[in-house]
Amino acid sequence: MGKNTKEAIIAASISLFNTNGFHGTSVRDIASKAKVNPANIAYYFNNKHGLLEYCLTIFFERYVAEIEEGYERIEQGATICLKTIARNILFFQYENIHLTRMILREITIDSQVVREIMSTYLMKERFYLNRVFERGMQTKEFRHVTPDYMTLQLKGLLNMPFLNSHYMSEVLHVHPNERYFAEKYLKEVDRWIDGVLCRNEYEPAYLAVN
Amino acid sequence: MGKNTKEAIIAASISLFNTNGFHGTSVRDIASKAKVNPANIAYYFNNKHGLLEYCLTIFFERYVAEIEEGYERIEQGATICLKTIARNILFFQYENIHLTRMILREITIDSQVVREIMSTYLMKERFYLNRVFERGMQTKEFRHVTPDYMTLQLKGLLNMPFLNSHYMSEVLHVHPNERYFAEKYLKEVDRWIDGVLCRNEYEPAYLAVN
Repeated sequence: MGKNTKEAIIAASISLFNTNGFHGTSVRDIASKAKVNPANIAYYFNNKHGLLEYCLTIFFERYVAEIEEGYERIEQGATICLKTIARNILFFQYENIHLTRMILREITIDSQVVREIMSTYLMKERFYLNRVFERGMQTKEFRHVTPDYMTLQLKGLLNMPFLNSHYMSEVLHVHPNERYFAEKYLKEVDRWIDGVLCRNEYEPAYLAVN
Repeated sequence: MGKNTKEAIIAASISLFNTNGFHGTSVRDIASKAKVNPANIAYYFNNKHGLLEYCLTIFFERYVAEIEEGYERIEQGATICLKTIARNILFFQYENIHLTRMILREITIDSQVVREIMSTYLMKERFYLNRVFERGMQTKEFRHVTPDYMTLQLKGLLNMPFLNSHYMSEVLHVHPNERYFAEKYLKEVDRWIDGVLCRNEYEPAYLAVN
């Protein structure tokens, strides 16, 4: 029962934050949508900020775990390792599409809680990605690149469809909540890794076909 | 005097929307920061929604004009045309960095005004980009690609640094408000065009150097 209440509060807040923004949503709105007493929200999360902090933390704990799991493949080569990390992030975001959109928007606002997230989780992400880029350049799998600029590009690619899901469906008629999209987009990300990062001698066969 | 008041209101609202979000900002906050009477805001923009709509409209009018100006080079080839469009968008966003961040965040919220922006300006953007991708495939400058997926990637690359300016400076120690950044990032976008879109026979010399 307690677990269901907590889950209902989280689901309602994600939905409302995505429609009205964090500041445009009140604890009363969340309680009403989740069909719970506002006192439950205070009990579990203290207040609206506590709820956002909770969402940020569960999101980035799992996000970094996905990166770490991919990073374990580093000994198999930088390309395969980076593709695994990208795949893990892409599917994690796809499987948590509403939470992802809310989180990706909220971290664009400068606040204390966002700065804490950056100095922990996003610094860890940078650390792992830098290691992969450095390794790839060392083994000559990758061209000479500036790791931080590659991190920036990769994150742009992975975030764009989930942050802009309305744009995707309204303008491009592409639906990021469909498995088909995730599979196809993963191929695009792989092509980015092959085309932008990898040296030509490693060019995979499917590019030569076109 | 009238122009100054209007400009001051716009500058104050962009700053506050970026710090507290649209919903977290009141007309009174804007008036106070802009050092104007709240009645001035009502006079020029009706209300806070009118102000946001005004910002969205001036932003996207100029944004689409930048794309159209780049599109004029289509007869010189798809690659040069796309690079010009990317350059125009990048520098437009760089020169309007605070407005850009606010706009890119606000269009991730599903609202009536955002849907109107999408069905006009962002449909136009899609139209021009699709024409460039189709042309490039026709002339064999580009590989066989899915235009909408390329639009998605290109927009991800161009938006990421401006939407996430705090992440950029806090985590990557890269400063998107510096001219140096814009120049360097443009080279990265060009490399994306060369590596992901262009066929190998068109591979520019600087890639072969590495």
